[in-house]
Amino acid sequence: MDEIRRRLAARSLVAGEKLPSVRAFARTMGVSPSTVVEAYDRLAAEGLIRSRPGSGFYAAAGTAPPLALAEIAPRAERDIDPLWVSRQSLDAHPDTLRPGCGWLPADWMPNEAVRRALRKLARADDAVLSDYGGTRGSLPLRQHLARQFAAEGIAAGAEQILLTGSGTQALDLLCRFFLQPGDTVLLDDPCYFNFQALLRAHRVRIVSVPHTPSGPDPAAFAAAVAAHRPRLYVTNSAIHNPTGATLSPQTAHRVLTLAAAQDMVIVEDGIFADFEPEPSPRLAALDGLDGVVRIGSFSKTLSASVRCGYIAARPDWIDGLVDLQVATHFGSASPVAAGIVHAALSDGSYRKHMSALRARLARRQKQTIAALGALDITPWTLPRGGFALWCRLPDGADATELARHALRDGVLLAPGNVFSVARTAPDMMRVNVAQMEDKVIAVLKASLASRR
Amino acid sequence: MDEIRRRLAARSLVAGEKLPSVRAFARTMGVSPSTVVEAYDRLAAEGLIRSRPGSGFYAAAGTAPPLALAEIAPRAERDIDPLWVSRQSLDAHPDTLRPGCGWLPADWMPNEAVRRALRKLARADDAVLSDYGGTRGSLPLRQHLARQFAAEGIAAGAEQILLTGSGTQALDLLCRFFLQPGDTVLLDDPCYFNFQALLRAHRVRIVSVPHTPSGPDPAAFAAAVAAHRPRLYVTNSAIHNPTGATLSPQTAHRVLTLAAAQDMVIVEDGIFADFEPEPSPRLAALDGLDGVVRIGSFSKTLSASVRCGYIAARPDWIDGLVDLQVATHFGSASPVAAGIVHAALSDGSYRKHMSALRARLARRQKQTIAALGALDITPWTLPRGGFALWCRLPDGADATELARHALRDGVLLAPGNVFSVARTAPDMMRVNVAQMEDKVIAVLKASLASRR
Repeated sequence: MDEIRRRLAARSLVAGEKLPSVRAFARTMGVSPSTVVEAYDRLAAEGLIRSRPGSGFYAAAGTAPPLALAEIAPRAERDIDPLWVSRQSLDAHPDTLRPGCGWLPADWMPNEAVRRALRKLARADDAVLSDYGGTRGSLPLRQHLARQFAAEGIAAGAEQILLTGSGTQALDLLCRFFLQPGDTVLLDDPCYFNFQALLRAHRVRIVSVPHTPSGPDPAAFAAAVAAHRPRLYVTNSAIHNPTGATLSPQTAHRVLTLAAAQDMVIVEDGIFADFEPEPSPRLAALDGLDGVVRIGSFSKTLSASVRCGYIAARPDWIDGLVDLQVATHFGSASPVAAGIVHAALSDGSYRKHMSALRARLARRQKQTIAALGALDITPWTLPRGGFALWCRLPDGADATELARHALRDGVLLAPGNVFSVARTAPDMMRVNVAQMEDKVIAVLKASLASRR
Repeated sequence: MDEIRRRLAARSLVAGEKLPSVRAFARTMGVSPSTVVEAYDRLAAEGLIRSRPGSGFYAAAGTAPPLALAEIAPRAERDIDPLWVSRQSLDAHPDTLRPGCGWLPADWMPNEAVRRALRKLARADDAVLSDYGGTRGSLPLRQHLARQFAAEGIAAGAEQILLTGSGTQALDLLCRFFLQPGDTVLLDDPCYFNFQALLRAHRVRIVSVPHTPSGPDPAAFAAAVAAHRPRLYVTNSAIHNPTGATLSPQTAHRVLTLAAAQDMVIVEDGIFADFEPEPSPRLAALDGLDGVVRIGSFSKTLSASVRCGYIAARPDWIDGLVDLQVATHFGSASPVAAGIVHAALSDGSYRKHMSALRARLARRQKQTIAALGALDITPWTLPRGGFALWCRLPDGADATELARHALRDGVLLAPGNVFSVARTAPDMMRVNVAQMEDKVIAVLKASLASRR
């Protein structure tokens, strides 16, 4: 009974769907068929399932328990579950060291620019402070983004840009727009772990392609597209999360050609774009925002507290997305949030801050590589920028076990398999070079040693 | 071909579902069967549908066009479509008069408190300004809400409260949590129009119950619950939108008893609670947050620009909702937004502002009733507070036609059927007393006269 309830909560069994036959389920659970018959009868008495004589048992409509995302992942692996890492990172005690988290420490951020922006907003018109704002969001910020896109080679007018409540919400809106339950979505392996959690909430099938230092493996990509006909491909451009890989022009062209042939939409998340010394090849630029949608946010470079994201896409898609965002959020990004973001980005200090930050991160990257090298922990590739290093542990050490051990010592790690759809990264971890401190190295050393 | 494409975009035809038979569809469309055969063959050639020999045609997987919410509504009635009114209200030219819109004019809002809050935030810790914050959102704001709920008779600790990006997003999260496509949801008729748009996006069936001045009609409510077994009932408490009705204790008790018997969850949206002179009966208070979820936001009383909403619910539900919000929004409400809201609510001026606002609205309500009375436009009931009046037009005048006419004169009205699931309010409209100006009365007069 518990197992069927779990499947209903995870929506792996949906209303109207047939339950496994008594015999098959008895085999699966290692119990006798009469036990299954009794369990099914009781579930039917509770109204959760219905029996159709001569046909079997079916999940009843309108009685599904609340959706439990956690139930969708295998229970035994709860500690390498993407949601677990997200919740740990967000709710960690302030004293926890977080080399596994995906953002910069608070004192690395351009807080003075944000403070000036808040004071500027305090003098804004009543309407900016109190009204919902237009359905696409702040025009000045969209115009700013349009200019920034132009510098990356993406021609998108302000009317082709939709502001959203966050980068994650931008992707969520696109999933609602393009997907239905049961569709297939292609991800990189490894990829940003919350892509998996988000796609679970949309109840789609996830297929992944091994990532190389120059983008997705082209042959595997072609094979996956042909075999699974995915509706979407979601990827990080600029500095790939977690690997730090840079898309090569050849791979970009190959990916676009394959996507176009199969009518597969590409969502390119450029959230790390400002960390690049100069723009790398962009799918959205090569494609001209035809079958590629560009999303992003300001959480990594400006503030994760002031939530604001964006979508740049074809005008007809933007129009449909506006309807969806009105229905599900009533309006676009907060005008106050967009106002703060625009004021801070336009602040004379922002460009200088980013340039100093890139230099600081480059130094930290070098130091971190040296410190990890002393523990035989080696980077998979050398990222052109950003704060993440995708690292291999020495001789088959298990990153999940290491993470469990380190957490007891107040250090939050991000074990490789959290990022890997196919669970092919048991001995990898993502390290945030800006969150490295001497104590982290000491805890890593002790954790690795305890294993031997 | 267009009609099948439309059904696919509206998701009224989903992957794997059988298309109407050739004969039935020919009858529906008033064309010959051979025309339908040709259309189906062409759609099959495009890959949108597949033929299964001997069985018929089926919608193909992975080829659905992007979800078009607008297509879900009947095309001919686009101007009484909820999304149309929302988009018009949000994107209206600043000179448009908006008695049809659902919020106060900018200069009626407590903007000075928001300005002081912004300046206070400019002095906050770096972490508040730059980090994502915890998964439930700002603790001080949740503690403030817990105290406010206690005053309404709802016992909810801060850990039972989840902050969200907006009130709409709170409901959206609950829909994801409780519903699957095909479930049934119960609404009031009339009700806040965006409930319909939001539920469309979740592809659920909507059933409605006529509203009375003391809440939903008890007999119709009982019949609807028994006949349709809805999973959710979504309603506005305090001051009902659009009618201004107040739930009576008897009706509240009846509704709770019926809901409990059928395992139906109630979502009570208390967004207008602060407009009440003193708290009216609350479902969440009577029920003790067992099968009732309380949601709300600060958009109507503080600022619609600083987006922040909340959910108060059972601890086990909050836990599942946290996972869902991490997956779909990565974190809770913006800490900066929650900080502004908390600072403004705690500002000594807020309570005085609300008390003055209630008095000002009461005066405006009286004036508006008099001015509309001269045009034979009469309120359906006398609301205890708030800014909405649900009004009947004289001798069967059509509100949709009136709205179309008035828009040409720069006045945005909210025709009754936008709020009515069953389209039973053709001669009703919602009037925002705070947005009434002499020109609105003049335009209404001219529009009514032109009809004669």
